[in-house]
Amino acid sequence: MPAPALDLSASSIDITRQLCDIESVSGNEQAIADAIQAALAPHDHLEVIRDGDAIVARTTLGRERRVVIAGHIDTVPVNHNLPTRRETIDGEGYLWGRGTVDMKAGVAVQLKLAVELTEPKVDLSWIWYDHEEVASELNGLGRLAATHPELLTGDFAILGEPTNATIEGGCNGTARIELRTTGVRAHSARAWVGHNAIHDAAPILAALAAYTPREVEVDGLVYREGLNAVAITGGVAGNVIPDECVVTVNYRFAPSRSGEEAIAHLREVFAGCELTVTDLSDGARPGLDAPIARDFLAAVGGEARPKYGWTDVARFSALGIPAVNYGPGDPLKAHADDERVPLAQITECERGLRAWLR
Amino acid sequence: MPAPALDLSASSIDITRQLCDIESVSGNEQAIADAIQAALAPHDHLEVIRDGDAIVARTTLGRERRVVIAGHIDTVPVNHNLPTRRETIDGEGYLWGRGTVDMKAGVAVQLKLAVELTEPKVDLSWIWYDHEEVASELNGLGRLAATHPELLTGDFAILGEPTNATIEGGCNGTARIELRTTGVRAHSARAWVGHNAIHDAAPILAALAAYTPREVEVDGLVYREGLNAVAITGGVAGNVIPDECVVTVNYRFAPSRSGEEAIAHLREVFAGCELTVTDLSDGARPGLDAPIARDFLAAVGGEARPKYGWTDVARFSALGIPAVNYGPGDPLKAHADDERVPLAQITECERGLRAWLR
Repeated sequence: MPAPALDLSASSIDITRQLCDIESVSGNEQAIADAIQAALAPHDHLEVIRDGDAIVARTTLGRERRVVIAGHIDTVPVNHNLPTRRETIDGEGYLWGRGTVDMKAGVAVQLKLAVELTEPKVDLSWIWYDHEEVASELNGLGRLAATHPELLTGDFAILGEPTNATIEGGCNGTARIELRTTGVRAHSARAWVGHNAIHDAAPILAALAAYTPREVEVDGLVYREGLNAVAITGGVAGNVIPDECVVTVNYRFAPSRSGEEAIAHLREVFAGCELTVTDLSDGARPGLDAPIARDFLAAVGGEARPKYGWTDVARFSALGIPAVNYGPGDPLKAHADDERVPLAQITECERGLRAWLR
Repeated sequence: MPAPALDLSASSIDITRQLCDIESVSGNEQAIADAIQAALAPHDHLEVIRDGDAIVARTTLGRERRVVIAGHIDTVPVNHNLPTRRETIDGEGYLWGRGTVDMKAGVAVQLKLAVELTEPKVDLSWIWYDHEEVASELNGLGRLAATHPELLTGDFAILGEPTNATIEGGCNGTARIELRTTGVRAHSARAWVGHNAIHDAAPILAALAAYTPREVEVDGLVYREGLNAVAITGGVAGNVIPDECVVTVNYRFAPSRSGEEAIAHLREVFAGCELTVTDLSDGARPGLDAPIARDFLAAVGGEARPKYGWTDVARFSALGIPAVNYGPGDPLKAHADDERVPLAQITECERGLRAWLR
């Protein structure tokens, strides 16, 4: 089947719609990657490289500085919210549908500027990658960082994740742990023969309910932390004293704390509990102290804010590249069944990036 | 297929083995019911009635008093523990295998005496019934009580459930409830937008952990209660603030408390919680104050004890018939993979019942 044609001379709003209507749930990015590759091919100012379903398009103008601008091309599963449609709510225009916020609008702005800006003031490495919405080990940007780190090299990086068209610096780290209590099974008619593991989880829930998350200032931005049970499970049968209970806890921690420090903190909060780390990703400091970042902030205008959710900016941060999030759409609408992006934010991001790069 | 032949002239130990080796997991009682019916047919002192896979065999000698003696013929699923085998542990002989304790040994003693005692001192209604190990609405004794209550009529009832060959009076009641907390979903990176339902379960687990179960004397026997979480469940995904948590609680309550009173007590313990009753069975008072019960106790010898687990004696109790449990086998071995009955207890129960009935 030939790749659907992508018209990059259209408006960024219209490109958003074209991109969304190519269904591209994680694992199914080939068609959209083909379309992007085909649409970029005629533009001689770009060196286009394909790696799996990730595409890198670079200028090689010999500029003093290089900026990486990236976005993922996959979405979470569609839930009766494709194809896209235009909506007007309280006089404001929206594009409604899966992917509009997370993050085809950001990708559309990037694609439009990639072909338009033949003479940007910095060299640019545009990256559109696969598998962001699934397990970290599948992540296309992570794959590029591991196999072709030279493609990610730069002085500054901008990720087009939704930020309501403002600059959000860095991101919180995230840890997931399991807290396990162990008891002894018995018939519940003779409970004293056993030991109830669910009852033993009482102090864990009490600690969670009593915990006050920190607000931490990092490089001028205030990061809000969070410590939450995201799952609890225990029980054998309706007449059996349970011998195991597992509480899964997710800790979102400010980027001033390393992953190791975060786990040490959890070991203090849940002292005496059996604790297993199942997932750990460092956060990213905002990176707004770099002169190039200040320059970008000045061109876009407005105030920078902290990013709470973990994003792939942490991958750039780990490579020593200051990175921020900047994209259209409300992050609270990402993955929602009524996912929809305000049209004005698409245009605003296009304006902000163009103002800085031209 | 013809029913396997059952030789009721054998010893009660041997009859136990014959019965166990006819696999009769709940729902598959037809073969064993056929075998019992065929074995009883030649004995003219018994009127034999078949209802589904339940069999009633009655004497009609015009005695002043009638005693009902009952046992269920089904077992929980076999788990590599059939056919039965003889074992000797520390010099004590056992019959090992599924059903040996719960409760083919009790049924074997009953069958042996049913054909042997042609002139018992009271009229006897022997009942062997199906579907005891599964949902209450399938229970064969419950079905008979509803459709042929006259078959259950009597002045006293003995259920052959395992009691280590001692008399265990009455039984605790049992209630099962669900306690539900409700929150608001949100991305765990922005937990403050939502409300964590698992954290809200902290006071429920604290109340369970702090609860001291009562010990209650009823008609001279001390019943031990129990209040236990038997399951807990909550969680949507690893990055979502959960909007629901459900704690399933099993309350075993002394027979001095009605089911209604038990629920009222739970509403006090979990005041302010959303509480749903999913299962409720009244207990049974020991019934040992009835003269006929005292007479039985004297003939068997030993001390009566309370029965903690809920048994079908409660069905007799609900009909106004005093009822006790009396059977070979350790209840802690019921349903166990190493289920096994001491041979001496089979003989002891045979002796005890014969001593009283002859």
